[in-house]
Amino acid sequence: MPLWLVFYPEGHFQDTAARKALTQDITKIYTDIGLPPFYVVVNFIQMGPQDMWIGGAQKTDKPFVRFVIEHIAVNLPDDDIAMDRTARRIDQALKPHVADKGYDWEFHVDETDRRLWKVNGLVPPKFGSEQEKVWVKENRAVPYPEGL
Amino acid sequence: MPLWLVFYPEGHFQDTAARKALTQDITKIYTDIGLPPFYVVVNFIQMGPQDMWIGGAQKTDKPFVRFVIEHIAVNLPDDDIAMDRTARRIDQALKPHVADKGYDWEFHVDETDRRLWKVNGLVPPKFGSEQEKVWVKENRAVPYPEGL
Amino acid sequence: MPLWLVFYPEGHFQDTAARKALTQDITKIYTDIGLPPFYVVVNFIQMGPQDMWIGGAQKTDKPFVRFVIEHIAVNLPDDDIAMDRTARRIDQALKPHVADKGYDWEFHVDETDRRLWKVNGLVPPKFGSEQEKVWVKENRAVPYPEGL
Repeated sequence: MPLWLVFYPEGHFQDTAARKALTQDITKIYTDIGLPPFYVVVNFIQMGPQDMWIGGAQKTDKPFVRFVIEHIAVNLPDDDIAMDRTARRIDQALKPHVADKGYDWEFHVDETDRRLWKVNGLVPPKFGSEQEKVWVKENRAVPYPEGL
Repeated sequence: MPLWLVFYPEGHFQDTAARKALTQDITKIYTDIGLPPFYVVVNFIQMGPQDMWIGGAQKTDKPFVRFVIEHIAVNLPDDDIAMDRTARRIDQALKPHVADKGYDWEFHVDETDRRLWKVNGLVPPKFGSEQEKVWVKENRAVPYPEGL
Repeated sequence: MPLWLVFYPEGHFQDTAARKALTQDITKIYTDIGLPPFYVVVNFIQMGPQDMWIGGAQKTDKPFVRFVIEHIAVNLPDDDIAMDRTARRIDQALKPHVADKGYDWEFHVDETDRRLWKVNGLVPPKFGSEQEKVWVKENRAVPYPEGL
């Protein structure tokens, strides 16, 4: 958690520097609220010119990037303001990488139950717990007696 | 919204015409209820002969297409009849492209919260709103004062 | 249902035997509770060296495999013990294929509504029903009068 899938058109996000910059800005969304950096997995999935169809047609005006985001560690309360704040935070992280490059883009977030999530066979420590701070500090899944 | 992922076996859906016909029939599911065509994103993801496993084996009898569908703009009420109607509508759209070609296929729909969804940095207008009609007419994300 | 996406790094899970062993162990999770083997679809999606980013960096220490799991046919009750049991069962199935090979790995399960799921145009029979037993026995979607 979180998992990001970045469906991008061939010919864009080709260089390592662009991917690094994007994934670091994405990562900061989550480290800013105290999560370990290694939780943030971003998979780039290239779409060939015939692979992405929009409204039954191939997009020819601007490159289009479609972000699919899974939130697992922290789910939001059913609250318009919290939802809006999260969506704006994602917008802010993405802006230099899409809007400022003249791309079209879209994202949506899916939330799933953290009880059905494990890393290296471990139940990730509770959000905000002391054990989570250990995972942040070492930036890896450190074995611990579960149930803490 | 919606986002469709089409996991298809190598050697099928190769030509542009087949993809266009399928994605236009998919798009119609949503434009029929008043959504803008550009909301409908369909990504074709090719699976090589070793990439798709079914029940722990490789499928050899018929080609198999697996559709993964995300619904965001409009979520259904918790109602068997509405669910059934939607599933039938999808079946109807897919039939010429899978059943009639002798394929096996499967789909499922996941629904996510529209408050965690943005297009080009904009909150998409409410379903059925006047602003949504502008997006339909121009078939793009037209900036507007949010909160309308 | 279920659908597994296996995001794996190039150079791993290359041979058919490794994939067969993994997908058979995954399938057993579900056949053990009575589901038909053919419900279990596992898609392998290869990630090139520049495609998977973790915490804004490229992983260089160990190979990392990210499993994304959709559960549709059977959703769990909102119960910590049931959730934990399922997550442990998945761990157990994965262990020989990831932990024992020295990989890092992560999985999460998303649950979706079975009313928005069809196979070959058919509503899959209710969990535990007589008709489901027919699907198990023949290991395919056998047409039947729906509503049974």
